[in-house]
Amino acid sequence: MESKLPHVGTSIFSQMTGLANQYQAINLSQGFPEFDAPDFLKTRLAQYSEQGFNQYSPSSGMSALQSQIAALVARRYNQTVEPESTVTVTSGATEALFVAIQAITQVGDEVIVFDPAYDSYAPAIELAGGKAIHIALRAPDFRIDWQQVTNALSDKTRAIIINTPHNPSAKIISQSDVAQLKNLLIKHNLLLISDEVYEHMTFDGQRHFSALLDEEIFARSFVISSFGKTFHCTGWKMGYCVAPKNLSAEFRKVHQYVTFSSFTPAQLALADMLKEHAEHVDELAQFYQQKRDTLVQALQPSRFEILPSEGTYFLLLDYSAISQLDDVAFCEYLVKEVGVAAIPLSVFYDMPPEDKIIRLCFAKHTDTLLRAAEKLCSL
Amino acid sequence: MESKLPHVGTSIFSQMTGLANQYQAINLSQGFPEFDAPDFLKTRLAQYSEQGFNQYSPSSGMSALQSQIAALVARRYNQTVEPESTVTVTSGATEALFVAIQAITQVGDEVIVFDPAYDSYAPAIELAGGKAIHIALRAPDFRIDWQQVTNALSDKTRAIIINTPHNPSAKIISQSDVAQLKNLLIKHNLLLISDEVYEHMTFDGQRHFSALLDEEIFARSFVISSFGKTFHCTGWKMGYCVAPKNLSAEFRKVHQYVTFSSFTPAQLALADMLKEHAEHVDELAQFYQQKRDTLVQALQPSRFEILPSEGTYFLLLDYSAISQLDDVAFCEYLVKEVGVAAIPLSVFYDMPPEDKIIRLCFAKHTDTLLRAAEKLCSL
Ligand SMILES: CSCCC(=O)C(=O)O
Ligand SMILES: CSCCC(=O)C(=O)O
Repeated sequence: MESKLPHVGTSIFSQMTGLANQYQAINLSQGFPEFDAPDFLKTRLAQYSEQGFNQYSPSSGMSALQSQIAALVARRYNQTVEPESTVTVTSGATEALFVAIQAITQVGDEVIVFDPAYDSYAPAIELAGGKAIHIALRAPDFRIDWQQVTNALSDKTRAIIINTPHNPSAKIISQSDVAQLKNLLIKHNLLLISDEVYEHMTFDGQRHFSALLDEEIFARSFVISSFGKTFHCTGWKMGYCVAPKNLSAEFRKVHQYVTFSSFTPAQLALADMLKEHAEHVDELAQFYQQKRDTLVQALQPSRFEILPSEGTYFLLLDYSAISQLDDVAFCEYLVKEVGVAAIPLSVFYDMPPEDKIIRLCFAKHTDTLLRAAEKLCSL
Repeated sequence: MESKLPHVGTSIFSQMTGLANQYQAINLSQGFPEFDAPDFLKTRLAQYSEQGFNQYSPSSGMSALQSQIAALVARRYNQTVEPESTVTVTSGATEALFVAIQAITQVGDEVIVFDPAYDSYAPAIELAGGKAIHIALRAPDFRIDWQQVTNALSDKTRAIIINTPHNPSAKIISQSDVAQLKNLLIKHNLLLISDEVYEHMTFDGQRHFSALLDEEIFARSFVISSFGKTFHCTGWKMGYCVAPKNLSAEFRKVHQYVTFSSFTPAQLALADMLKEHAEHVDELAQFYQQKRDTLVQALQPSRFEILPSEGTYFLLLDYSAISQLDDVAFCEYLVKEVGVAAIPLSVFYDMPPEDKIIRLCFAKHTDTLLRAAEKLCSL
């Protein structure tokens, strides 16, 4: 049998978490929090299930949750979206990304992807019969050359995928990049898939750029976010997509045949959480900024060069001063010999540069971060 | 924007449930139970979430659940499958069907679908760039003409999808059909997607045919089932796929980019349920046979012709003696004027015949079934 994804193996996140468990290393690789979901959320999950809300939700989501997502958008971005026709609940942001890509990519279509990129974008495009056009951004500043982007467009280009705050670079898109992006979208009549799963984790007073903030951009966008990231429940696989009515209609046509709907009691619990504990969302940036600062400070004595982290819960480290191994080999060495699991930057590229950079996840207890830093400082 | 699924609207199940709610009709349309998930299952869900199992599971599923699925297969079908490499947990059987289809369908490939068919098969094939080849089976016996199937094969035919017990016909595949199917699969080197979500609901002592029962068939099969159907928790969206190692590897490549993983606490709760309450599964056939008998008996005085239901939780009724409306119009009349929501049979066909047949779901309390029957007997 011919493989649909011949170049794909097990995702790097699964691999590294597997190795971390096997070698009992501190797992700063796969992006998930070490701390638990809020008690309120867990209690509501239990209550709604106990009360019998265990059958199919509507395919687009429970209206209580759709409304609270619209309220969140209004509060954070001062935008009015109509919950019933523009908000679709999904089984994680991964499903939302997959569905958005499927909904707009015809056989032969091209979609622009900025590398380093989350590992699902390109396979999702490929599975839709499309072609990912990779634009490589290089460390340490990951600057976008818009001329290069323009040159990469063809009459088959259908969409651009952006991710801000960005995994793994931890950068936030600049105002001038937003302006260039907007020009391009309008001039070439392109759609935007805006992966904003780290939207509430921006540091040092920086604002998140949401595609929801600009009406002309939003008119051609799928805005995707994740409750797993925001509420420390990555294992609940709950996310959503906000898109204008016409795009949402196409999104929903596909979604209903991919998963149909998502975990009903969790939707109701998340609706309550958003309604009754808005402060959780508002405090998230500060919470993670402290984590970042703890890790950065603890790594000061090390020989790693620390790249700036403006958002997400990731930090990049350049290890050029420590080892000449390539980053995959270095991560293998780290997990097996040093006791810290990290992700090599190169796996996020279609054509990996030879940078010596790894990614750490700092969504961990202070103690865990300090223990990991101590090990890393020994190198 | 050109639609990826131009012929598709909102699924009939969503539409009819919407109408049922709007007109406060008794909802025998969309297939979900009126009774709740077992208390044990709900309690374990609450406990595992409370205990902090709220982060990503491995992409293929929690090993506790994979093992219990393998144990279920051993107990029910006397087959040994290796849980780690052949069992993949999915976000509902719908996701499993979608992923299996994506994993094997290249652009231009053809997949044989027997109509009446579950509504997701053809769009999933289309989204993969393939073509659904519909073989129409006709009421009341829904007999398969294997010569017609053979004639429909081409060198682009990649797979056949079967569903037994069958939604909506409520038929179980016959031994002789299994023999014909097996010949065809082997002779033409085809894969099988075996949708067995109603596997535990077979009546009158009939045995379920699982593709797992025949080693040569299983060697080329994706066997898909659903916990939602078995444990009355359709809103949990938990299902799975059992396939030989080589096919599971391709399945998993796609699955990791579609949803990555499923609700962690639910996986652990379902593992416990399977382990500690095997009797639930074993008693399901009798439980639903009683429901069927209740509904059939209550409909005896009606002018509907009742088609035999051998399995699933569905019953077909021929209303030729009652109305000359087509089945979509008749269902609209039923939900609005009579107060009972049903599903028209024609929506399960690519080329709908002019049968006057509707589908009822009898996964309801006795009282509900009797009230619905009373209304239907008034026609
Ligand atoms: C679905 S596993 C990947 C988690 C994640 O977002 C990351 O580590 O980048
Ligand atoms: C996912 S909604 C469809 C439920 C069902 O299986 C049916 O009614 O046939």
